[in-house]
Amino acid sequence: MKVEKLKVNFKTLEEFKKFKEYGIQELSMLEDLEANMIEDKSDSPFYGIYFGDKLAARMSLYKVSAKYDRYFYPTQDYLELWKLEVLPHYQNKGFGKALVEFAKGLGLPIKTNPKVKSSVFWEKMGFTSVEYNMERDLGENPLVWYPEGVELQSN
Amino acid sequence: MKVEKLKVNFKTLEEFKKFKEYGIQELSMLEDLEANMIEDKSDSPFYGIYFGDKLAARMSLYKVSAKYDRYFYPTQDYLELWKLEVLPHYQNKGFGKALVEFAKGLGLPIKTNPKVKSSVFWEKMGFTSVEYNMERDLGENPLVWYPEGVELQSN
Repeated sequence: MKVEKLKVNFKTLEEFKKFKEYGIQELSMLEDLEANMIEDKSDSPFYGIYFGDKLAARMSLYKVSAKYDRYFYPTQDYLELWKLEVLPHYQNKGFGKALVEFAKGLGLPIKTNPKVKSSVFWEKMGFTSVEYNMERDLGENPLVWYPEGVELQSN
Repeated sequence: MKVEKLKVNFKTLEEFKKFKEYGIQELSMLEDLEANMIEDKSDSPFYGIYFGDKLAARMSLYKVSAKYDRYFYPTQDYLELWKLEVLPHYQNKGFGKALVEFAKGLGLPIKTNPKVKSSVFWEKMGFTSVEYNMERDLGENPLVWYPEGVELQSN
């Protein structure tokens, strides 16, 4: 089960159409590709797991700069994880876990904003909820994971 | 169809349990109420429409300060609208529209991050999508509405 960084090309974007969380980020990548604003093979924020030649699972990871960090202490760069999704046919086989373990292996704290119903999964992965702060979190239900030596910022 | 600001009390929080988007914001309000950290009747960020004595629809509105504004020009305070939801029994009766019209009546630009499937509704309400900016928007699909004299910030 190998996690790989996904290249932005028409094949990848075609695979993305199978995922439920297909939205303006994907459309924006498609437009850039069509307008030759990005090269075929540019890096994307997406990581995925192929099963044969089919993309079975994916997530998006974006490094947020320390100057915007309102979650961790000491203040530092952290990863925002979103669009974690395993296609129905491949669920309950450890693909989601493999993606999250990969993200944890990058050594930075992680923040995500999962669907409420997926809380059991995130708990198993060692993520914890934060004290809700309306001004910071608005419509989000943030969960965080941090490596040793890192803790939550106090509000 | 009267839109009213909802008071934070046990009755309101009980009504909130009927809504799908019940999450840590509501739980945090409940904890504060139980710990007497807020008074019964404190203002909440919620607005709603009652049908008889039942809460039929609600939304949350939060004023984001101009210094965090990355969407509008000139830079200004704006409203973040989220948790707009009409209970199933009351749908397609104009409750959602009434809430959004109320928000527009406050005279500030509005940003929301709706579910992709609700785009027809938001279009009817005069909201438009923004050019996706990954660093700013991450997992969001932002839509905006602005009063006359306001436009989008250029990226």
